[in-house]
Amino acid sequence: MKDYLKQFQFPEDLKEMDYDELELLSYEIRDFLIEKVSKTGGHLSSNLGAVELTIALHRCFDTPKDKIIWDVGHQTYVHKILTGRADGFDSLRKYGGMSGFPKQRDSEYDLFDTGHSSTSLSLGLGLAAARDLSGEDYEVVSVIGDGAMTGGLAFEALNNTAHLNTKIIVVLNDNGMSISPNIGGLSHYLGRLRGSRKYISMKAQIKKNISKVPLIGEGMIAGMQHARDSIKYAVIDGVLFEELGFKYFGPIDGHDLQEVCETLELAKQTDGPVLLHVMTQKGKGYSKAELNPNVFHGIGPFDMETGQLLSKSVKPSYSSVFGSKLIEMAQKDERIVAVSAAMLEGTGLAKFSHEYPKRTFDVGIAEGHAVTFAAGLAKAGCKPFVTIYSTFLQRAYDEIMEDVCLQNLPVVFCIDRAGIVGADGETHHGIFDLSYLKHMPNLTIMAPQDGAELEAMMELAAKLDGPCAIRYPRGTAPQLGGADHAEKLEVGRAMRLREGKDADIWALGSMVEKALDAAELLKEQGIEAGVINQRFVKPLDEEALQEAAKAHDLMVTLEDNVLTGGAGEEIDALLINENTRVLNMGWPDTFIEHGSCDQLYRVHGLDAAAIAERIKKELEG
Amino acid sequence: MKDYLKQFQFPEDLKEMDYDELELLSYEIRDFLIEKVSKTGGHLSSNLGAVELTIALHRCFDTPKDKIIWDVGHQTYVHKILTGRADGFDSLRKYGGMSGFPKQRDSEYDLFDTGHSSTSLSLGLGLAAARDLSGEDYEVVSVIGDGAMTGGLAFEALNNTAHLNTKIIVVLNDNGMSISPNIGGLSHYLGRLRGSRKYISMKAQIKKNISKVPLIGEGMIAGMQHARDSIKYAVIDGVLFEELGFKYFGPIDGHDLQEVCETLELAKQTDGPVLLHVMTQKGKGYSKAELNPNVFHGIGPFDMETGQLLSKSVKPSYSSVFGSKLIEMAQKDERIVAVSAAMLEGTGLAKFSHEYPKRTFDVGIAEGHAVTFAAGLAKAGCKPFVTIYSTFLQRAYDEIMEDVCLQNLPVVFCIDRAGIVGADGETHHGIFDLSYLKHMPNLTIMAPQDGAELEAMMELAAKLDGPCAIRYPRGTAPQLGGADHAEKLEVGRAMRLREGKDADIWALGSMVEKALDAAELLKEQGIEAGVINQRFVKPLDEEALQEAAKAHDLMVTLEDNVLTGGAGEEIDALLINENTRVLNMGWPDTFIEHGSCDQLYRVHGLDAAAIAERIKKELEG
Repeated sequence: MKDYLKQFQFPEDLKEMDYDELELLSYEIRDFLIEKVSKTGGHLSSNLGAVELTIALHRCFDTPKDKIIWDVGHQTYVHKILTGRADGFDSLRKYGGMSGFPKQRDSEYDLFDTGHSSTSLSLGLGLAAARDLSGEDYEVVSVIGDGAMTGGLAFEALNNTAHLNTKIIVVLNDNGMSISPNIGGLSHYLGRLRGSRKYISMKAQIKKNISKVPLIGEGMIAGMQHARDSIKYAVIDGVLFEELGFKYFGPIDGHDLQEVCETLELAKQTDGPVLLHVMTQKGKGYSKAELNPNVFHGIGPFDMETGQLLSKSVKPSYSSVFGSKLIEMAQKDERIVAVSAAMLEGTGLAKFSHEYPKRTFDVGIAEGHAVTFAAGLAKAGCKPFVTIYSTFLQRAYDEIMEDVCLQNLPVVFCIDRAGIVGADGETHHGIFDLSYLKHMPNLTIMAPQDGAELEAMMELAAKLDGPCAIRYPRGTAPQLGGADHAEKLEVGRAMRLREGKDADIWALGSMVEKALDAAELLKEQGIEAGVINQRFVKPLDEEALQEAAKAHDLMVTLEDNVLTGGAGEEIDALLINENTRVLNMGWPDTFIEHGSCDQLYRVHGLDAAAIAERIKKELEG
Repeated sequence: MKDYLKQFQFPEDLKEMDYDELELLSYEIRDFLIEKVSKTGGHLSSNLGAVELTIALHRCFDTPKDKIIWDVGHQTYVHKILTGRADGFDSLRKYGGMSGFPKQRDSEYDLFDTGHSSTSLSLGLGLAAARDLSGEDYEVVSVIGDGAMTGGLAFEALNNTAHLNTKIIVVLNDNGMSISPNIGGLSHYLGRLRGSRKYISMKAQIKKNISKVPLIGEGMIAGMQHARDSIKYAVIDGVLFEELGFKYFGPIDGHDLQEVCETLELAKQTDGPVLLHVMTQKGKGYSKAELNPNVFHGIGPFDMETGQLLSKSVKPSYSSVFGSKLIEMAQKDERIVAVSAAMLEGTGLAKFSHEYPKRTFDVGIAEGHAVTFAAGLAKAGCKPFVTIYSTFLQRAYDEIMEDVCLQNLPVVFCIDRAGIVGADGETHHGIFDLSYLKHMPNLTIMAPQDGAELEAMMELAAKLDGPCAIRYPRGTAPQLGGADHAEKLEVGRAMRLREGKDADIWALGSMVEKALDAAELLKEQGIEAGVINQRFVKPLDEEALQEAAKAHDLMVTLEDNVLTGGAGEEIDALLINENTRVLNMGWPDTFIEHGSCDQLYRVHGLDAAAIAERIKKELEG
């Protein structure tokens, strides 16, 4: 095999290569991806599925003049390779290394720093509208998955696109999955399109029409119009998009380079909004990933031959503690149901969904609906546990406030991946949830110090009459206090873990362990620091806080959330007129980069050593 | 005319009345509505449009056992009349009186306290899913306008409904408007349905089929299936909803009581999700409102004969100051564009939209898309001013954070109706925006003390390289300081308005005027209070704050936002280790009821007298 990746300049040289060469390139890119990601870990399945599509896009469009926007962005590895960043893969997702998502600072080919779903159509439409106003001339292509298309934001953009009626090309990369298989009306609809018997004949029709089209001038447009109409009426089902104002092309085979390229050319020559429906397969070309695309969606380092992870934690994660406990609770209380937004696996609900399929509601990538739907469930007597990652739950801010908190309904938000998450970086860290939840009336907010306390908090949450949020981090759940600690759980009550006269550390959730370690380090230096497991951000344990403030010259707050609007600020407001010093520790007012969690804690002065150091300094100061 | 409203018991007696009586009732209700709302003010147009539909719903369904969910909820006046609350209309929207929105505490017929758009489908689906789990048997009907249907949340629910495939009836109340005429692909689509020539013949077809249907048993179902199929194939356009998994009925004339009732009966007997497309006219039956439905959407007291408002402020509102200034700025800078979410009139953009139609983007009820779309505009060189009410902007929390702040794009958020708004109550007060924005990195946040300062802040905002939010209240813009004050505007700098040695009041935006009044009241009692126009919540004027704290025994923060996570807490965090007392004043951690703004300030201790009183008390210790 030729070493295309070294031999050619991309994306420029793509235009000179014939389809056979492009196909060889696609093999080389797949080998490269599998080898690199097996070493660093990362998103594999979606990138293997997008190889030909990405090659075709950079071949057919004049990037970076033409604008390609990748929804979510974890499927941009091939795009990175083709825009001069193959070398970055050795440091993929490492601290200081290349991000696994698009980054404007890395490349002029990356238009937005993305990570959340369903935004590419709105972003693309904004670019297109600005282009029209300024009289410039470039193509705008938004590449969106069928999973992301179920997010309401994408629909809002589809609706608005028809009104503006400007030229934009939406490439619907339909692999039938988000992380897990997709569900819902749109998905069924796309499935019918995929399964349509008209598919083969339509493909032939496209090729026939394209070959007839003269190269330039009016005849070409007319020919294309004819081709388009043939497609439309051959696959009447595309009418859903057609009725919303798009010209629909497809479905086409997203692994057939020639077909993708030719259809993209057709789309380029068509006026107004175009939707191109491309069928791809997640994990394409690597049998392990084809068989288990969700396992290889985002994966750690693995053995290329066997597909097995090189290291796997044997300790239970918070997610698995949550999942097991919910099954146990559901056995005793039939009102308990689970709601997920396309994240059954990640949030630990997979087993629950098998045991209680009817009591599991996976609504797709639609966090807002997940929350409002849960409000309806609760109103009618269910006890919904809504389990969403911290960073994605913010997509339902309004729904939590209006549909749950205002109604004072007993919905339990189990906020997984709260705090720093590591390699996914800026868009995935869950360091804002306390700030966006704390001011919601009626909401109880808690954070467990360990797995046993998560279980106890879930039990407590199920007994509350109003809404409640439990936040817990990514990764292993420690066992700090044992079951006896958990049994003493009471709403609004903190728990003292350690006495110490010099300073008192009020630590929240995942930071309790670090606070205990810091207290040990301080003790070695002759400083006695108390440690409190804060447990509740809302309601605060005001009595214990005021008592502690009176007894200590220094109060320390410690949280895995930004300081602004976080738990510490709330304590400041309570203690503002007390005669004690307060030191707030948490994340600064900035977006935190990617890297391992340990590195990020260290770099930002939030590991045990740094905590101890800052407390010591403050006491000396 | 008979006095039906007094003679009958509703909703029970509706079932006994014939269509002629129901029609007379509809006249009486219209007269009642026009008379009452002319005195109290309120939402008129949408309620006049929903008279027959509401009568038909309560006639055909067994409420409250069957559940009717009203999207948004300002169209529930007829529902209130028919559920025992006609007497409440004398105190409509007054402090302590009847809310203009559904309220669970008022009636078992009100299922949710709503106010924000596009939630009814998700709420209804939650009820239906819970019903199915518990084995209960009742109907769930979600009534949603075509405006609300453009919100992404409604689409997420449509998508999920098909998957659950449970029995739910969605009544699409299509009047072609939200507050202003609707736009977008869905709206065009509904317009085509409405205009369909098949409409007349289909109506006849429904009636014919219904009359054929035996009353009970299998024959009935089969007959109905046939009727449904006739409808489906008569109006193939309904295929959009059909493809998403709904059985589509319509469009039908929403002012023809018999037609609505008969079609609702048909929907009741149909399995699975049903979408019933009902055409209504906003303002129906009152010529002034039919001609100007948006004027009578939400209106103050008016003269029934002329349709003229009884009192109209001659002073410019903040919204109008904003609108005029943006036109002035747009004349000089062609990069400036305006983005609105179905609120051109309310936000003061109507004139701008006439002067600069191509630079005005009204995206419909789709706040998330408005923000992400604006990010695209900004990325391509525009300077978007996104103007959305405070309470509705929270629907775009994730988009502001991820698509604007993370990208550090120069989008200007002009947040109208920030602070208490008065008669609309809980769901419409804008008292959370500082709390949900303050922790977003890269965002500048300001609040003007008066109209001149709003203008200056808009000028400043247009010069910033990053995102920026300007929040200002509903109603009249005072002119406190004149243009010279505004000229001294500098990022992160507060402005001293008054010296005073005893206390220093840091007042934000609309609270500056109250602070000045309070300082005068305090002076009469021998207390010297300084007043600072805080101007910036982010970045804070840390230097001036620390200086003021050193010079005063008491620092007072004053904001038209909840205290939790608000501007005052940020100041607390800054001053926590300073040797001064701090008093935070703002809204408490609860949902604030409806009433006039003056009353609400008074009741909650935030008018000038109460502010002065609390400062005095605090000083006396």
